[in-house]
Amino acid sequence: MSELHDECGVFGIFKNNDELDIVEETYLALYALQHRGQIGAGIAVNDNGHMKYYKDFGMIPEALPEAELARLGNGKIALGHVKYSSGETVDRANLAPLVMRYIKGQLALCMNGALTNYPELHDELKHGAAIFQSNGDTEIIAYLIARARIDHPSIEDAVCTAVKKLKGAYAAVLMSPSKLIGVRDPMGIRPLCYGKIGDNYVIASESCVFDSLGGEFIRDIKPGEVLVIDDEGVHSYLYQQSDKTALCMFEYVYFSRPDSIVDGVSVIKARQRAGRILAQLHPIEADIVCGVPDCGIESAIGYSMESGIRYATGLIKNKYIGRAFNNRKKNEEYLMRIKLNALKYNVEGKKVIVIDDSILKGKTSKHIVELLRQAGAKEVHMLIASPPFKNSCYLASDTTPQENLIASNHTEEQICQYIKADSLGFLTVESMREIAKECNIDMCDACFTGHYPLDVSDTSREDKYSQKIKD
Amino acid sequence: MSELHDECGVFGIFKNNDELDIVEETYLALYALQHRGQIGAGIAVNDNGHMKYYKDFGMIPEALPEAELARLGNGKIALGHVKYSSGETVDRANLAPLVMRYIKGQLALCMNGALTNYPELHDELKHGAAIFQSNGDTEIIAYLIARARIDHPSIEDAVCTAVKKLKGAYAAVLMSPSKLIGVRDPMGIRPLCYGKIGDNYVIASESCVFDSLGGEFIRDIKPGEVLVIDDEGVHSYLYQQSDKTALCMFEYVYFSRPDSIVDGVSVIKARQRAGRILAQLHPIEADIVCGVPDCGIESAIGYSMESGIRYATGLIKNKYIGRAFNNRKKNEEYLMRIKLNALKYNVEGKKVIVIDDSILKGKTSKHIVELLRQAGAKEVHMLIASPPFKNSCYLASDTTPQENLIASNHTEEQICQYIKADSLGFLTVESMREIAKECNIDMCDACFTGHYPLDVSDTSREDKYSQKIKD
Amino acid sequence: MSELHDECGVFGIFKNNDELDIVEETYLALYALQHRGQIGAGIAVNDNGHMKYYKDFGMIPEALPEAELARLGNGKIALGHVKYSSGETVDRANLAPLVMRYIKGQLALCMNGALTNYPELHDELKHGAAIFQSNGDTEIIAYLIARARIDHPSIEDAVCTAVKKLKGAYAAVLMSPSKLIGVRDPMGIRPLCYGKIGDNYVIASESCVFDSLGGEFIRDIKPGEVLVIDDEGVHSYLYQQSDKTALCMFEYVYFSRPDSIVDGVSVIKARQRAGRILAQLHPIEADIVCGVPDCGIESAIGYSMESGIRYATGLIKNKYIGRAFNNRKKNEEYLMRIKLNALKYNVEGKKVIVIDDSILKGKTSKHIVELLRQAGAKEVHMLIASPPFKNSCYLASDTTPQENLIASNHTEEQICQYIKADSLGFLTVESMREIAKECNIDMCDACFTGHYPLDVSDTSREDKYSQKIKD
Amino acid sequence: MSELHDECGVFGIFKNNDELDIVEETYLALYALQHRGQIGAGIAVNDNGHMKYYKDFGMIPEALPEAELARLGNGKIALGHVKYSSGETVDRANLAPLVMRYIKGQLALCMNGALTNYPELHDELKHGAAIFQSNGDTEIIAYLIARARIDHPSIEDAVCTAVKKLKGAYAAVLMSPSKLIGVRDPMGIRPLCYGKIGDNYVIASESCVFDSLGGEFIRDIKPGEVLVIDDEGVHSYLYQQSDKTALCMFEYVYFSRPDSIVDGVSVIKARQRAGRILAQLHPIEADIVCGVPDCGIESAIGYSMESGIRYATGLIKNKYIGRAFNNRKKNEEYLMRIKLNALKYNVEGKKVIVIDDSILKGKTSKHIVELLRQAGAKEVHMLIASPPFKNSCYLASDTTPQENLIASNHTEEQICQYIKADSLGFLTVESMREIAKECNIDMCDACFTGHYPLDVSDTSREDKYSQKIKD
Repeated sequence: MSELHDECGVFGIFKNNDELDIVEETYLALYALQHRGQIGAGIAVNDNGHMKYYKDFGMIPEALPEAELARLGNGKIALGHVKYSSGETVDRANLAPLVMRYIKGQLALCMNGALTNYPELHDELKHGAAIFQSNGDTEIIAYLIARARIDHPSIEDAVCTAVKKLKGAYAAVLMSPSKLIGVRDPMGIRPLCYGKIGDNYVIASESCVFDSLGGEFIRDIKPGEVLVIDDEGVHSYLYQQSDKTALCMFEYVYFSRPDSIVDGVSVIKARQRAGRILAQLHPIEADIVCGVPDCGIESAIGYSMESGIRYATGLIKNKYIGRAFNNRKKNEEYLMRIKLNALKYNVEGKKVIVIDDSILKGKTSKHIVELLRQAGAKEVHMLIASPPFKNSCYLASDTTPQENLIASNHTEEQICQYIKADSLGFLTVESMREIAKECNIDMCDACFTGHYPLDVSDTSREDKYSQKIKD
Repeated sequence: MSELHDECGVFGIFKNNDELDIVEETYLALYALQHRGQIGAGIAVNDNGHMKYYKDFGMIPEALPEAELARLGNGKIALGHVKYSSGETVDRANLAPLVMRYIKGQLALCMNGALTNYPELHDELKHGAAIFQSNGDTEIIAYLIARARIDHPSIEDAVCTAVKKLKGAYAAVLMSPSKLIGVRDPMGIRPLCYGKIGDNYVIASESCVFDSLGGEFIRDIKPGEVLVIDDEGVHSYLYQQSDKTALCMFEYVYFSRPDSIVDGVSVIKARQRAGRILAQLHPIEADIVCGVPDCGIESAIGYSMESGIRYATGLIKNKYIGRAFNNRKKNEEYLMRIKLNALKYNVEGKKVIVIDDSILKGKTSKHIVELLRQAGAKEVHMLIASPPFKNSCYLASDTTPQENLIASNHTEEQICQYIKADSLGFLTVESMREIAKECNIDMCDACFTGHYPLDVSDTSREDKYSQKIKD
Repeated sequence: MSELHDECGVFGIFKNNDELDIVEETYLALYALQHRGQIGAGIAVNDNGHMKYYKDFGMIPEALPEAELARLGNGKIALGHVKYSSGETVDRANLAPLVMRYIKGQLALCMNGALTNYPELHDELKHGAAIFQSNGDTEIIAYLIARARIDHPSIEDAVCTAVKKLKGAYAAVLMSPSKLIGVRDPMGIRPLCYGKIGDNYVIASESCVFDSLGGEFIRDIKPGEVLVIDDEGVHSYLYQQSDKTALCMFEYVYFSRPDSIVDGVSVIKARQRAGRILAQLHPIEADIVCGVPDCGIESAIGYSMESGIRYATGLIKNKYIGRAFNNRKKNEEYLMRIKLNALKYNVEGKKVIVIDDSILKGKTSKHIVELLRQAGAKEVHMLIASPPFKNSCYLASDTTPQENLIASNHTEEQICQYIKADSLGFLTVESMREIAKECNIDMCDACFTGHYPLDVSDTSREDKYSQKIKD
Repeated sequence: MSELHDECGVFGIFKNNDELDIVEETYLALYALQHRGQIGAGIAVNDNGHMKYYKDFGMIPEALPEAELARLGNGKIALGHVKYSSGETVDRANLAPLVMRYIKGQLALCMNGALTNYPELHDELKHGAAIFQSNGDTEIIAYLIARARIDHPSIEDAVCTAVKKLKGAYAAVLMSPSKLIGVRDPMGIRPLCYGKIGDNYVIASESCVFDSLGGEFIRDIKPGEVLVIDDEGVHSYLYQQSDKTALCMFEYVYFSRPDSIVDGVSVIKARQRAGRILAQLHPIEADIVCGVPDCGIESAIGYSMESGIRYATGLIKNKYIGRAFNNRKKNEEYLMRIKLNALKYNVEGKKVIVIDDSILKGKTSKHIVELLRQAGAKEVHMLIASPPFKNSCYLASDTTPQENLIASNHTEEQICQYIKADSLGFLTVESMREIAKECNIDMCDACFTGHYPLDVSDTSREDKYSQKIKD
């Protein structure tokens, strides 16, 4: 039960089968991506170069009411976006897709990511008389494309030229009057893949979308690739090669849905393997092993398989506690109580291993240990299916400031005392790499090691959000 | 993943600790009961005999907005209710609690259940000049109490007298100006229990509420008991003894939350035991056993423990698909696809046992088998953690008409062919009884056997809802 | 610009022309009656004895959204109601029509009025085991009819029997499975009339409804008359004759729309005549005479006709200031400023006569004088088109408590000083009678004279609302 | 009752008195301007260079809910805007104020007007890599200022430079981090004035705002003037002089509120004078003269003063029929019926003169004549307080296409026949000029004469809205 929030899920579809209801399909795809963002959602539809859109705050059913979807009509290409959930108020202007009119008609964009050179680009564009209506990265990309398009006869060229100026993480989907375009940053920090639903091409943050819609996965978009889909088919442009790649390890730990395959690695397999490795690194004499829902479950099953210790359901999560719940101003611990419940029948009188995906501030872990003890657990051993999280992320994971990360200023021993567990164990960074060893590309493990894959200059290390606001 | 819907969850609280925020506590309790009803919710608060309430349609955050809760103020006693979800439109007047003014001031009521002698009572009351503003059972009880109160000096006596006239299932919570009262029908068809949160007494449909609120379970309310809580403490009246009791078996199969203990039996234990017995009844050579979320999971773990076959996650459920989703008018099969996804990594090339809680119409099972085959399962064996469901329920489970129950007019062989499984197995009625053998009271197994615990006369066998509307 | 609020507008329609959209017609009728109540609205439709309804808070477009109206379907008979606006919070259960099920199927009711024997009837009914879900008069009438219906073979008889028990003001419209029924109290305190729209019969609080819908006025319902409309036509029952009648004078002064004709007197004519009489009683040397919108306008025109002094627009009212405006918590005087504006062009340097319908607390008058002076008026003479308002109303006008009525404890001289006018004049009670001399029935002038037409016992003189709540 | 719609009202305030609640003041000001636009509203607040805003669809209470206003906090400068009502769907991105971030921090803008060189400017900016998120004129101005600001050290200079590129009508209010700026186009086509509320400076579309807020009018902003308000006071820049000015005549006929003074002429006086002139041009033997509410009332009073024919209220308007009403899909004529009602008492048996502000399509006039005849008028003479409306407006009045303007292709005689009046008379263009002869500036009478004050090239004569969308 991570305290980490991912930034957004993206989706695009290019219709080749006239019978497809493109808004319906995009709406359903967003449901399969809802875990990547709960603060807002949007859909844009392109009917022969004329684009309509609707976006609003809330989970999908609130954000995209039937009546508004009906007004979108039908079209040949569509984009969909879910926006990440965060404590900060997000301005309405930051919702996506961004639909704009420029020299070549209309263009729509949405992305998952964060630009580390946002301040420089923002500054440069303002000196070129740009006006910004949001404080988001998407608007930056829109301007760069608009600029590049002046001199480039094709949208593909303009996009390639524009995105070369970007630094940071970005998995974006764009829609020109006649083309659907996917772009992944040269390090491949955020996932992006494409597939087919019948004859129709789709681009999405995660492969689970294709399964949900009854389609099939084709392949991941490569780091530094621009993928263009039009009436002639699929075209690939490797606009920029990086000597290193850096897929975010947290996609396996927490962000992606277990049924997704990210850059060649099944998420559920990675989580199971994390559990197996934990069993090797931290053999514990216990009666049962259980997982913290949702992400710790598979690691607990993996631990059970490796160790022979019985897997059991130790905690259940109230599936009705959503965003709206937080309106009641109870203290955080109280909220955790209503959110999780320990299963006395499985836990009472037992030595319990409990596996969670990560520890950020440590409060959740502390609460879980307490819950299990109250339910009668004789011993509670907490294992974490990732290494200690020590460094803030500047690449599109909405983490808490570094000073709040308990592992950044406490030893494992101290954390164990704080959460009042009988023992505490983590994965090592090496073992973390092991769990995703079949991954096609390299990994970013900066949150564990502090080795950022690209320059996270002083400027961008400041809280990105306040930076933009102050600007 | 049952196609069955329970009717309502009830909650009441009597405050002894002045610092308790009684509306807050009721609100959180309803979250723990949300699984018992998603169509509407309500809270009534009693401040020294003056009652305020708010109730509306929707899940808790929609139905009970902060601003309305604020208007309820504080009080000494409160009731909370969640209303069942059903395809039928429910009139606003049917939402609970029902707050009324009668000869002795105000009275509030809410219930989980269904009266089989509703038509007779309705008729009798109308001949006594009653007017009905809803078509619900709660209003009937309100009138009977109002009548009884004329001659009875105490609310306890009046309640006892009134409910003796009722036939059917009812677990009700009432609030008079100074008392909180719980009533359970003489057969104990629907669950009801009480406990404490600190110094404060609470009555609830399920014990999971006490855990969620950090309180403790005291005991189940007995069949035929009226439990009265006031400033002097707790008083019990056994108003009516029945020679047979009949707790609904489906409380273990599907309705109750796994962390509840109903009449002495842990729900999770019952589900695990169902899995163990399935392993004895239906030994299958398979690679993995998995459960259909949410209710099939524990039975799959039980099967695994008994058989030694590895437990694995075979299907994941989209946790964001809620009530609002159904607004999109896609066909049912399509909706199932977005709702469930098979985990190829765990399933591919495997002989798979999949356990679900029940089969009603059979469509869901058919879809699950198909999903698992598409994900590469070599064999799919479907096991059901309950006996064939052959008879409609008239006691507060909102089942489909009997002709739609596949087991009422097909053999197990035919069902297996219909759902396209390699094999299909059920629990027997005897084994079903075995899983809940420690239950304090007897069981109703009418849905499996057709032996209704009380007269379900021709009148009441008609569709209850249309009956009331036609009236 | 009275500080007085009327209680409700009622409407009923009996369809004889199959093509009529009965919900549409009722909806439009409520627009014509919106001035009689802005706090809530409701419509009930009767399709062959099966009634559907929708009611909610707010002005018509908020209270009756299109989607809900669509669900009402069509029918043969319909009722509509607008509820009065008041500072008090009105419980949802008090919205009308009240639709109920009783011994003879369904019945729907709505009314404009107030029962002075509410406490006695409430008490009596409670002793007969009645339960009350609202604190409104309508529910009392519903019970009385339900009781009477036990022994009476026809709804007409039952209604006649029931309403004989009522004391106070009531203009009610009812709908049984096959009949539309209008009832007016024996004194005719509140108006009620009927007419035709094409072949369809309609009953309404005011005749302006018929004009709006393109229909024609037939006649006022008589004091003490029950009017029944069914497939056979129109039937009249004079259920109770009173030796005195007492139409509320304020219907002419303020409540009714100027284009209505109430008991034979055109409202606009009454207001003009009031102006003429003011000119006779209070001849003033002035440059212009203006009216306070909306109700003072016609009296000002009347004064001008009689006196020859030029009529001019002295004040304009912001037509966008509605109920929602009051949410901003500005002080009352501030709100008056944004609500009214003086027209400097017409007023500057002039001796101004300004006519308003009534003075209750006096604050509005004071503000108006100030506005006119600020706009440059040399003199401001305030005339009131009714006598001094000295006594609270207990017959369905939601007046302020008597101690707040400035005329109840100040001389005209003192009021004039308080509002800072150069002079102040009222109508006399005699002249008030003169303005409506063609009225078919007698008048209630209790607010001016204190002579209530029926016993307003100590009980009912208490604040009626708190009374009901305390009960 | 014109069928013409104005485009927007603007407001800005610069606070010098710390106690002023700037959001409250802006909110109230928008109420006084609501008649200039009902489709949406917005407020932006500037707290030390950091701007917050809220804007949404609907009338003020819907568009600007209390909770959102509370989030705006307080500030030194604020803008407010009401958007015009039109049949066309307006995109959310077109709501104002537009708040943007550019090279010099934040800037907010809102305007009333229409640019005739929108296509050229749009095109030019796109070639400079601009991206457009709306299809409104405001975004164009924002870009021009952003461009100009690159080379201009002061916002004043940049604004002056930028707006020189504009052609068309524009009355705009802007807010930089420290300045409030008003701009009026060189012809002064739309009104704009400024005043004080206590120590605080305000700019508004109409002077009625100052009266409503208890402030005072200072003067109109001059054609071609940029007015800058900052901590040092008020600064005026005459950035561009035009040899002709062209205030829209319809501001007197219909758009402005009667209590406003526009460029030296009282609106109410202009309307009265129109009535006087009609009396000279069209002497008619009649019993009464009445006006069509709201705009025809004062002209009817003027006619009465000049002719001696008695003024009477002939028609009343349902003040509750607002925007929401139109959701019911009744035919237009039906809607007119519920909107207006003739007063039989004043009209029956009379020869009636009825004065309206203008005729566009003619349907409303036809309906009015019919209403009066149904109410018993012996004769109905329709007079129009403006000349025949023959030409579409391209300068911010949302008129119907020219082919729908009845006067563009029918003689007065034919129109009279169509509306079935006994006679029909208009003002002449000369007399129209006469009514506003004290106006400080010249008038635009293009709608009557076809003499547009600036080039309305083929491009811009096309429907402006579709033009922008097609783009």
